[in-house]
Amino acid sequence: MPDARELVSATVARIRGADPVCAATAQHAMDAKTKPRGSLGRLESIATRIAGIRRLPSPGPAPSVVIVAAADHGIAAENVSAYPQEVTAQMIQNFAAEGAAVCVLARRAGARLIVVDAGVAADLGDIPGVLDRRIGPGTANATLGPAMTPDQAFRALGIGIELAEELAAQGTGLIGLGEMGIANSTSAAAIVAALLAVEPAAVCGRGTGVDDAVLARKVDAVRRALGANAGAVDIREPVGVLAAVGGFEIGVLCGVALGAAAARIPILLDGFITSAAVLVAARVSPACVESMIASHRSTEPGHSLVLDALELEPILDLGMRLGEGSGAALAIPIVDASLALLDEMATFHDANVTDAGA
Amino acid sequence: MPDARELVSATVARIRGADPVCAATAQHAMDAKTKPRGSLGRLESIATRIAGIRRLPSPGPAPSVVIVAAADHGIAAENVSAYPQEVTAQMIQNFAAEGAAVCVLARRAGARLIVVDAGVAADLGDIPGVLDRRIGPGTANATLGPAMTPDQAFRALGIGIELAEELAAQGTGLIGLGEMGIANSTSAAAIVAALLAVEPAAVCGRGTGVDDAVLARKVDAVRRALGANAGAVDIREPVGVLAAVGGFEIGVLCGVALGAAAARIPILLDGFITSAAVLVAARVSPACVESMIASHRSTEPGHSLVLDALELEPILDLGMRLGEGSGAALAIPIVDASLALLDEMATFHDANVTDAGA
Repeated sequence: MPDARELVSATVARIRGADPVCAATAQHAMDAKTKPRGSLGRLESIATRIAGIRRLPSPGPAPSVVIVAAADHGIAAENVSAYPQEVTAQMIQNFAAEGAAVCVLARRAGARLIVVDAGVAADLGDIPGVLDRRIGPGTANATLGPAMTPDQAFRALGIGIELAEELAAQGTGLIGLGEMGIANSTSAAAIVAALLAVEPAAVCGRGTGVDDAVLARKVDAVRRALGANAGAVDIREPVGVLAAVGGFEIGVLCGVALGAAAARIPILLDGFITSAAVLVAARVSPACVESMIASHRSTEPGHSLVLDALELEPILDLGMRLGEGSGAALAIPIVDASLALLDEMATFHDANVTDAGA
Repeated sequence: MPDARELVSATVARIRGADPVCAATAQHAMDAKTKPRGSLGRLESIATRIAGIRRLPSPGPAPSVVIVAAADHGIAAENVSAYPQEVTAQMIQNFAAEGAAVCVLARRAGARLIVVDAGVAADLGDIPGVLDRRIGPGTANATLGPAMTPDQAFRALGIGIELAEELAAQGTGLIGLGEMGIANSTSAAAIVAALLAVEPAAVCGRGTGVDDAVLARKVDAVRRALGANAGAVDIREPVGVLAAVGGFEIGVLCGVALGAAAARIPILLDGFITSAAVLVAARVSPACVESMIASHRSTEPGHSLVLDALELEPILDLGMRLGEGSGAALAIPIVDASLALLDEMATFHDANVTDAGA
């Protein structure tokens, strides 16, 4: 890899944000379709937003990809999850065998699934269908000091950027973000607490379903991680926050968000952990938020805080809290439907329908 | 058609409601899948509800159909819509030419679209792809007396029941309801005001997008229609309400809901007008509500009143207000995804993933 810091800088310099002219052209085209103006609600704004991101007046449904980045977290040693750390590696095997929820949902949505090992604790060897992008055997325990070195954090961003560039070269039209990593909702909570300057208790949820005792440990672990990294956790240095209390998969997804924004590909967020990843990206490059679409609102309390901070309104609100990219994959057919409506519906003129709204 | 009243009675007698044993078996199977229990939220309850309706422990995605029933309404003469009555016939042509929103959405969802002319004012002749089930050239103006005769109301129900029976024989696994008919949100408002005993103003919305003056006329038209039919509008006689102030397409969709419930096929509602149709069905047979799934919450105020009355929680809330079955078609991929998860996800046991929730 070329120097990761240079790659990040060059990528950020290429991010332009959405094009309001293409978005307005798309809305104008939507208004000519055989329906009362505005009557398709959010479907209209999703389609016009993507027109702006892709800088095409009618982008149409294009090949979608869901990236599931996985890694282990040293903070799991604080017993903050209902599941043991071995489950991260087991779930990678399950992704490769196409048995996990996100596999089923991506398949239904016609999306390709890309599984990235960003640094699981166990050495899994070569698993067909899993990209080896291991940065280390899991992060260090952030309650004792930095989770990773600054070099590792930039390497994670670089991996994500290169992945987005490859997908852009392949004509990908939409990238869904997903993740797996036991204890990663604790790392995400620490990132969000730092970047939004909120109390740990406000951003710690029950993750996979922990009880009150584990939830209390989780809040305490976030507090101690922020304390142990007090020097590094400066919200003006988002990559410093990522290095101090983040995770390898969170860094990779942050890089994907930056690379996709530079390549004009819309990013479909998933739940709380992906929201922490893109919050880092948003602080590195505020314009990249214009490339983001929120797929769903999870039950994690911190998720809504991040969505509000980024001014993103989720498409779905179905009480999901699985992660993996499951919400992103589920929303792909709705995003594609919005683009198909813009592309394929008849106009009042072509269909000879009287336009009372003209 | 055999005597429509007998067909309705025989159909209602066959409606059993959902099977709690199959639903519980499905939930048990869902709990064994590789995910924290309950973490797929509403996707789990949608799948288990359909298992109960279809009386199959894992029904899997099955062929879906969206029925768009269209008809004209005499109450359009009261100038209650932003669009002229001719648009009903024009939109049937647009459905047949596959240019309307519901055509695009059904196509994306892999669902077959069935367009039914239940009684448009103009004689359209034979349009390929449109089922001729004309009950009359539009209903009479309900502000002056009954919109239709009791015989016509039962005939509409019978047409819907026969349609559902044909679809059941073809192995249909899900039926979405859709409608088209200028002024039919006024007819729906009158039905709902009568059956829920609420003020006309509470159930009249802006429909296709009417201004304050038209909205006031709409409220007044509903009030006058209920007054002109005061003898017939007895909420203990739901078919009487349908005949007095309803529409042909609303009656057909009510019949579809009854026939589908008898055939154990889940029904996917659309917006306010379809909700009025199934409210009539629910009053004819309370058990048929167990076969219903609400696809979305429209911006029409009366829609939420009906959903609350039927205790149905919609899947989507995207500010849509088009009708046509657009919300139903949009939700089909989500319903199918829930069934695919139940059918295709690996279990903790099969995937060798540690089950902390066991």
